[in-house]
Amino acid sequence: MLMILDYIKEKAEFINQALAETMDQLEGVPPVLKESMKYSLLAGGKRIRPVLVLATVEALNGDEEKALPFACAIEMIHTYSLIHDDLPSMDNDDYRRGQLTNHKKFGESTAILAGDALLTEAFGLMAAGAKNAHLPLDVALTIIEEGARCAGSRGMIAGQIYDLQSENKKISLAQLEQIHRLKTGDLIAFSVRTGAHIAGASQRTLQALTEFAYGLGLAFQIQDDILDVIGDQEKLGKPVGSDQEKNKATYPALLGLDEAKRKLSVCIEEAKGKIREHDEIRPARLLEIADYLLSRDW
Amino acid sequence: MLMILDYIKEKAEFINQALAETMDQLEGVPPVLKESMKYSLLAGGKRIRPVLVLATVEALNGDEEKALPFACAIEMIHTYSLIHDDLPSMDNDDYRRGQLTNHKKFGESTAILAGDALLTEAFGLMAAGAKNAHLPLDVALTIIEEGARCAGSRGMIAGQIYDLQSENKKISLAQLEQIHRLKTGDLIAFSVRTGAHIAGASQRTLQALTEFAYGLGLAFQIQDDILDVIGDQEKLGKPVGSDQEKNKATYPALLGLDEAKRKLSVCIEEAKGKIREHDEIRPARLLEIADYLLSRDW
Repeated sequence: MLMILDYIKEKAEFINQALAETMDQLEGVPPVLKESMKYSLLAGGKRIRPVLVLATVEALNGDEEKALPFACAIEMIHTYSLIHDDLPSMDNDDYRRGQLTNHKKFGESTAILAGDALLTEAFGLMAAGAKNAHLPLDVALTIIEEGARCAGSRGMIAGQIYDLQSENKKISLAQLEQIHRLKTGDLIAFSVRTGAHIAGASQRTLQALTEFAYGLGLAFQIQDDILDVIGDQEKLGKPVGSDQEKNKATYPALLGLDEAKRKLSVCIEEAKGKIREHDEIRPARLLEIADYLLSRDW
Repeated sequence: MLMILDYIKEKAEFINQALAETMDQLEGVPPVLKESMKYSLLAGGKRIRPVLVLATVEALNGDEEKALPFACAIEMIHTYSLIHDDLPSMDNDDYRRGQLTNHKKFGESTAILAGDALLTEAFGLMAAGAKNAHLPLDVALTIIEEGARCAGSRGMIAGQIYDLQSENKKISLAQLEQIHRLKTGDLIAFSVRTGAHIAGASQRTLQALTEFAYGLGLAFQIQDDILDVIGDQEKLGKPVGSDQEKNKATYPALLGLDEAKRKLSVCIEEAKGKIREHDEIRPARLLEIADYLLSRDW
């Protein structure tokens, strides 16, 4: 069995190739638009979400090949959200994944449209993938419906609205957690649930995996906040200290650094507990991914 | 049989109600986001695209009820595109449908997110609608796939990119037509094709309706250009003369007003010819809609 870091690298490489192919197959896209989409989509990134899709399928003995277009679609949705979040009227960030943000490189209108396009093509890719894989109708449409719910006005976009509203305001820990659950948790849960749907998971298994995913999503966000305090700009690909500069509510800011670290550990352990002894899940890889996320410095 | 104006009003009212219900059923949306989405979505508008979905279903003796969520989804996609097109970094417009543009009313970040949300929820609505209507898998996924193609980087968004690139530039009539085919034609074709798919149209019928739709879409755009020259600001709900002010390529600018009007008539007649004597299409309403669009002053 591959060491976890090699496993993640292998899967990420598999996804990177599929993403590049997906982009190449889009014919008739204006060159500057395609360049802008590829610039952000193929800029590296941890590929955590698509890796989780594939690892979940594997944990349930499903067919990874069938899941690949969905894994790519989720990374496209994630990338679109980063492009739009970075815009001047939103977080106004200049660097992302070690390079200029999309609007800094291509201008604001192209960046907005590249985000729009990645979001739109993600749904097309899911529909095409479901068709090619001959997924059952109910499974295919459920995934697309959940994708809209998790990425849309009740999920990720709601999180971004609340996040923008909370800037320069004092918010409670509960409010912070709600923001992260929407902004990050929902798409991570969608990743895991998509893998589960494709592998034909039972309702009970779907539930356990969903709870695991939300725990993982929260841990991921706490770790992000911690890295913004103690991380290495070069490894992260973006400036550190930007949360504090923007006076953003974060776990270290609300709890102190040590307590934030403790909460991160608890959170990861609780998440792992949801799937560790589940009779329908082979949890090894998912547990390793959780531990890996805890230890990451990028 | 209802007069065409009453027919369009009746269908538009039906769609307005369904759109309002769709928005009401979205639970857990941050209030300002929901308000912003509803502000643009429920601001009136001609509802041409969803009316075309329903009229196409009717022309093929299909089930309009099944088509309603798709009709609403297409109007949501259209509305998202208007919100984003109006942004300061794009066309920078202040008025739309007789009221302030979304970003003028809610600020730029909320407007961008409201557009993102309408686009995302549109795909969710299509998936949910396909599930409820028990559409065949292939039909359901084909519609979603075509939606992504027509609205995405190879369709509507490509048109917007080329449109932005052509500002203050001399472009040919062929280039102008290509912009409109992408920016307006693709979504109108998608509207008609969606109705046809739901009604179970043959490939031959689908082809005829598609050609009709592209002709109609082009005519619609020529008429828009003409109205920007000779229209009434109050009826249009937006300032006239803005194309000229922005030095935009239009049919009247390239051909002169009289020749543009002649092209409009030819275009409508050609479009009508594609479906007038087709043995599988009851074309009366679609033909009336085409004539109505030719005569509109709003």
